[in-house]
Amino acid sequence: MSKEITSREQDYSQWYNDLVIKGSLADYSAVRGCMVIKPYGFALWENMRDQLDRMFKDTGHQNAYFPLFIPKSFLSKEAAHVEGFAKECAVVTHYRLKNDPNGGGLIVDPEAKLEEELIVRPTSETIIWNTYKTWIQSYRDLPLLINQWANVVRWEMRTRLFLRTAEFLWQEGHTAHATSEEAIAETRQMLGVYADFVEQYMAVPVVRGVKTESERFAGAVDTFCIEALMQDGKALQAGTSHFLGQNFAKAFDVKFSDKDNKLHYVWATSWGVSTRLVGALVMAHSDDDGLILPPRIAPLQAVIVPIYKGQEKKDILDAKGKELAAQLKAAGVRVKFDDNDNNRPGWKFAEYEMKGVPVRIALGLRDLENNTVEMARRDTKEKITVSIDGLAGTVVNMLATIQQAMYDKALSYRDTHITKVDTWDEFEKGLDEKGGFFSAHWDGTAETETAIKEKTKATIRCIPLDNVPEQGACILTGRPSTQRVLFARAY
Amino acid sequence: MSKEITSREQDYSQWYNDLVIKGSLADYSAVRGCMVIKPYGFALWENMRDQLDRMFKDTGHQNAYFPLFIPKSFLSKEAAHVEGFAKECAVVTHYRLKNDPNGGGLIVDPEAKLEEELIVRPTSETIIWNTYKTWIQSYRDLPLLINQWANVVRWEMRTRLFLRTAEFLWQEGHTAHATSEEAIAETRQMLGVYADFVEQYMAVPVVRGVKTESERFAGAVDTFCIEALMQDGKALQAGTSHFLGQNFAKAFDVKFSDKDNKLHYVWATSWGVSTRLVGALVMAHSDDDGLILPPRIAPLQAVIVPIYKGQEKKDILDAKGKELAAQLKAAGVRVKFDDNDNNRPGWKFAEYEMKGVPVRIALGLRDLENNTVEMARRDTKEKITVSIDGLAGTVVNMLATIQQAMYDKALSYRDTHITKVDTWDEFEKGLDEKGGFFSAHWDGTAETETAIKEKTKATIRCIPLDNVPEQGACILTGRPSTQRVLFARAY
Repeated sequence: MSKEITSREQDYSQWYNDLVIKGSLADYSAVRGCMVIKPYGFALWENMRDQLDRMFKDTGHQNAYFPLFIPKSFLSKEAAHVEGFAKECAVVTHYRLKNDPNGGGLIVDPEAKLEEELIVRPTSETIIWNTYKTWIQSYRDLPLLINQWANVVRWEMRTRLFLRTAEFLWQEGHTAHATSEEAIAETRQMLGVYADFVEQYMAVPVVRGVKTESERFAGAVDTFCIEALMQDGKALQAGTSHFLGQNFAKAFDVKFSDKDNKLHYVWATSWGVSTRLVGALVMAHSDDDGLILPPRIAPLQAVIVPIYKGQEKKDILDAKGKELAAQLKAAGVRVKFDDNDNNRPGWKFAEYEMKGVPVRIALGLRDLENNTVEMARRDTKEKITVSIDGLAGTVVNMLATIQQAMYDKALSYRDTHITKVDTWDEFEKGLDEKGGFFSAHWDGTAETETAIKEKTKATIRCIPLDNVPEQGACILTGRPSTQRVLFARAY
Repeated sequence: MSKEITSREQDYSQWYNDLVIKGSLADYSAVRGCMVIKPYGFALWENMRDQLDRMFKDTGHQNAYFPLFIPKSFLSKEAAHVEGFAKECAVVTHYRLKNDPNGGGLIVDPEAKLEEELIVRPTSETIIWNTYKTWIQSYRDLPLLINQWANVVRWEMRTRLFLRTAEFLWQEGHTAHATSEEAIAETRQMLGVYADFVEQYMAVPVVRGVKTESERFAGAVDTFCIEALMQDGKALQAGTSHFLGQNFAKAFDVKFSDKDNKLHYVWATSWGVSTRLVGALVMAHSDDDGLILPPRIAPLQAVIVPIYKGQEKKDILDAKGKELAAQLKAAGVRVKFDDNDNNRPGWKFAEYEMKGVPVRIALGLRDLENNTVEMARRDTKEKITVSIDGLAGTVVNMLATIQQAMYDKALSYRDTHITKVDTWDEFEKGLDEKGGFFSAHWDGTAETETAIKEKTKATIRCIPLDNVPEQGACILTGRPSTQRVLFARAY
């Protein structure tokens, strides 16, 4: 099985694609840039979505649903926003097809042209703030804490499964507040929710930071982000939380009256994570034998495979396998007993390695005589023989161990890949030879940022929130700087 | 509060709209035919969706996700299908906007025209069967049991909140089978799942039946349906389950090899319910004071309202209210203690009646002295004084009582509104004066069906699955008939 995957060493990009497709997460579709999320990949996304949804609700947010379509004129109302999104959007111009009277098959009916074109939402600030105008009148209507799970479309020219697709699934939180302070606190709170989720559930450590002006969301005053590191040393933006100031409130004229009946524009935030996280998960943990999924969100946490030759004594193994699966299930483990006769144990082992199932239990006749099973960890590939007595507890503990070990491993990799550099040579050499984040001084100008990007393809991923002020000289221009920022090449 | 709602008697249609908007379920949006589902309405839909999702998974189905866009040429591949959907679809023709060089603002970039137009999915048979072609090779790949939760768009000319909107949310199951028998069994199984859900969770009784040829889904061999009755005597199709035969397998060339290595076309089903069910729920149960929601899916099952004047002794009520809410929550009740000072108890009572919260508990100082509370049922408006001891159990029992009573009431209405008619006069008079379903003989021809529809606006809702064969004469033509069918005017 493992021979089917291109090795990470040989071609990282192809290795990633192989994992996504052969690990049954997703497939290309007939529509340019759009993917099909397969059942196994969707089950993984469901586990991620459901946990995030709980965390949003625990912080007081409610879900709602807004239209897929955005009138063209709405996009134009916020100047920076239209600049960011008009160039890559799907435009609906007609509402009917008809049979070509000249026999050319199905054609767009020219008489069914829309008066105003509709954009398939690339993000929903405009349609949502247009709605909030009718929902918000008084300070009593605030804060308004709403989230939407939805599909969005951005017409990307170069697409990659999960990482960058024309259509993707995401959630977008859109909140409205009476004060700037409260909106900023919300922006930071949701960044914290994202960081906790990615670290505790996906086992991927992140740097929390703020974007430079040129990397900001189109229409935001400040964009906070979490940045993760992939195994090839490239960074990946895993989530963003935006403080929008009063930009959208002004664009859509959303005001509230305070206790003294004075009118003020509302303060806003928006924040989102997407199916891109699935790509980050794959790239942060997997190896040349397939996916390695963290137990807390793995669709299947353990699999039990019976080992037998011929049909003799198969009944005994079947009965024991079902009994153990029932025990594990009762202990809250997502488990499968794979008694499929069509495939041999070796094939099954490779298949579950490919799919990244955290724990594999092999159930053989000799083991059974000794009242033991062989338990294998997907992350380290270690195998140990354990007693059948109390197996459910053993598995539950092992799942927790794996979750922690995966995080520790990723953290250790990440921490050894944050390199302080003080000269341009160190920086360039580091980018090429080592990869990862580079903590360096920058003179604070967009020009220098662009120049560095053009020379090295590295961008400023963020200014870390826990930065300590430090006097220094910009690695490119030598001009004075008051703090280090994190550079990296990124997805 | 109730004065804000148009009475059901006066204008049923306006009454419905008032309920949806003032009950905070949904709002009109700036996009023609599209609605905004508000947090309260979305919480209701989430409860419905989550329960259906459990039922789909319990019957072996997995979720997946397919592209929003369908290439125009795909629609044409199944002849009946294109006929049904090409006339009402949103067509994406371009992928970029730009600033008009002549200063006309944001315009569609003529250079960004798609080679082939994309249709926003009105349903996904075509894109899914195009995918199944690569997923299905052998009998080992069957059955393939997949469901998708998604938004779809049908460019309806006349729209109504929830009942008929251009964009709506739904699920669509798409399964593939080796035999016709198995596909038919799946079609019927999923109809059963829908019927169970609508009856047991929505408390709305349904008739299970099969559609006549002219009412069939575009591309189906047989369409099964569940039909519900609204309080104005009109029927509403609440769900459909289609046996698609080999139509889509042939259109997209999907074959499997059997155990003898012979190739066969695959057999298919598809089945769906949508946010339309929310409209059915509203119309089946509500009254002139607002929504009446069945406890099993109500976002909020009980509300506790403290009754006090001034601030004196408010602390005692607050403490007790919180304690009781905690007890109810621990018993699994979705409960809210409404201690908001901005609104008076009378306002709150009206608000929760409007929102259809099944149980309201009023907590007053005098009650407290007697160790009692006043519990009011939303469905019957009965109020009873009950002991605070064991209140959680009392509420849990009351919720079950309300769920059953709502179903019984709807069933009694429905059963007294299935009228056997044997003459045209009875039929016409019944439609105008009584409404409901009419069980009548029909000669089996599409011409007669159309003629009846044109004369009366009544359609054949279904041929009930439990029909008993019976010789008779068609109510319109007098020609011989072998069974009765159900006619009604419908949404």
